[in-house]
Amino acid sequence: MRGIAIDMGKTLTIEEVSDWLKTNDNFLILTHRRPDGDTVGSAGALAQGLREIGKTAFVLNNPEITPRYSRFIEEYLAADGYKPEYVIAIDTASDNLLPKNGDKFIGAVSLCIDHHPSNSLSSEMTCIDSGAASCGEVIYEVLIALSGNISPVSAERLYVAVSTDTGCFVYANTNAKTLRVASLLVEAGAPNRKINRMLFRTKTRGRIRIESMITSGLEFHFDGKVAIAAITIEMMKSANAEEDDVDDIASVSGMVEGVQAGITIREMIPEKDCKVSVRTSPQISAQAICERFGGGGHSMAGGFSLEKPVNEVKKALLEVLKDFF
Amino acid sequence: MRGIAIDMGKTLTIEEVSDWLKTNDNFLILTHRRPDGDTVGSAGALAQGLREIGKTAFVLNNPEITPRYSRFIEEYLAADGYKPEYVIAIDTASDNLLPKNGDKFIGAVSLCIDHHPSNSLSSEMTCIDSGAASCGEVIYEVLIALSGNISPVSAERLYVAVSTDTGCFVYANTNAKTLRVASLLVEAGAPNRKINRMLFRTKTRGRIRIESMITSGLEFHFDGKVAIAAITIEMMKSANAEEDDVDDIASVSGMVEGVQAGITIREMIPEKDCKVSVRTSPQISAQAICERFGGGGHSMAGGFSLEKPVNEVKKALLEVLKDFF
Repeated sequence: MRGIAIDMGKTLTIEEVSDWLKTNDNFLILTHRRPDGDTVGSAGALAQGLREIGKTAFVLNNPEITPRYSRFIEEYLAADGYKPEYVIAIDTASDNLLPKNGDKFIGAVSLCIDHHPSNSLSSEMTCIDSGAASCGEVIYEVLIALSGNISPVSAERLYVAVSTDTGCFVYANTNAKTLRVASLLVEAGAPNRKINRMLFRTKTRGRIRIESMITSGLEFHFDGKVAIAAITIEMMKSANAEEDDVDDIASVSGMVEGVQAGITIREMIPEKDCKVSVRTSPQISAQAICERFGGGGHSMAGGFSLEKPVNEVKKALLEVLKDFF
Repeated sequence: MRGIAIDMGKTLTIEEVSDWLKTNDNFLILTHRRPDGDTVGSAGALAQGLREIGKTAFVLNNPEITPRYSRFIEEYLAADGYKPEYVIAIDTASDNLLPKNGDKFIGAVSLCIDHHPSNSLSSEMTCIDSGAASCGEVIYEVLIALSGNISPVSAERLYVAVSTDTGCFVYANTNAKTLRVASLLVEAGAPNRKINRMLFRTKTRGRIRIESMITSGLEFHFDGKVAIAAITIEMMKSANAEEDDVDDIASVSGMVEGVQAGITIREMIPEKDCKVSVRTSPQISAQAICERFGGGGHSMAGGFSLEKPVNEVKKALLEVLKDFF
């Protein structure tokens, strides 16, 4: 394996990425922890695109991958003995976001392709488009530069990437280019009907039950500007809900009309530990709220952990929120 | 008022529509009954586009318009005394879909612009693109032909049209052209973040409550292939829900994993009359189910009315569904 890297590396243009990929061979592609549609779809599409121009390319298995997304990379997974020449990290903003089995590649990543402006992954070369809503849009450009063409298989994977990172084009990150790339992907054969139905128009019974519990238990404070939802371990059990079922569940409380801060308290250890997600509208900084509890995030989404029971977390939150409302 | 029409009229291309609009003046634009984002956004954008090239154009008030969409046409509403020379119907598939105050224009419509393949509205001329997911896409082409340009105001209205008719690009009608037009609209200044937040990322408390009630009361039959939801008048009252709150609520039961027919029974008169909506996945015909009750629809969405209490409607449905599952 070549390409030992220290800190952030040389910045490459899309053309330079394409030239480097054409010149080299035997790639291993890494996805990030708690893999989402963007990292998985982008990795799958890149592996597919590289194979289509005759390269050897595999994706490192991700132990945390869920059934929702596994089908989009399973055909590219590297066997245990695979010895890559070059390692490429996809959509992975820092070294500690590599999955456990990817730890050994820390410092050995040749190229990092991403769209997170905060990217700090150690890599010899980087190609980061912070204006892209998804990493899939960057990979789209790379594949076009590679061969001038997107196959239906790559298009499907890239559509998964672009659509999931934008909540099917509804999140605030969606821009004109996102929609243009999506249009070109559908033209190239991405089965958007099938994917939309599967990823955005289908809820498991567990999801339906847990959503119903959350919404019927929503608490409103500060004249309806704050909504607090709680998910206890007991609720997860009684809803027969799994991790996949609570994907993006933090957005539910923030969707209520008039709510400027939607807060979701997730009980992790009974009476002991909670994970809190904060979603805000533009006038309130989620990051500022979360920093008060030692957490962090962006302007409209953030999170933190607190070693307290749900009710005490709620109390502590309401106390701090007085400074914001 | 000129242009007395009998039955379906002469088919115009986009260029011919544009030429006709340029040659004439003093237009009145009609929207359809139970106005949605597509008819309102398209009508508003056309009025705006015509005014931008110096024409006099107004939209007929629609007595059924809800606060959700009224802001997109209010500045174009015709005063009572307005005497148009030409009437244009937008997104209106038949004469009886004109609002009550539009009845007097039946047979007097000069041009009908639409995307419904079944369009039968009486009109001297028609321009129907049945391949378009929304009427907004057709109006987009018309405005481009008119002036080569889409103003930010028109772009916002057209974005409302295109996005609402596709559920923000998630419904099965969304195609490459829909996404391309959306991309061009955002480029032209459509505030997609603001509109998405308002129309797709915000739920009223009434909506949240009624959804929670529906989902917690969902009944599953035929091995989970059929989900039945009921909305009684009592539920609407106790949720303090209004008509706007149950917009597209029929889609909820069809979203459950494994469900091939999602059925929503809405009580209209206590113990006496129900409206039933049926949403199906591709393998089951919603139309075929609804026709058994004297209703109709498309392959994946249909409806009918039954003068029975909710529980008897349920029984009757389960009996008929035996033939489908």
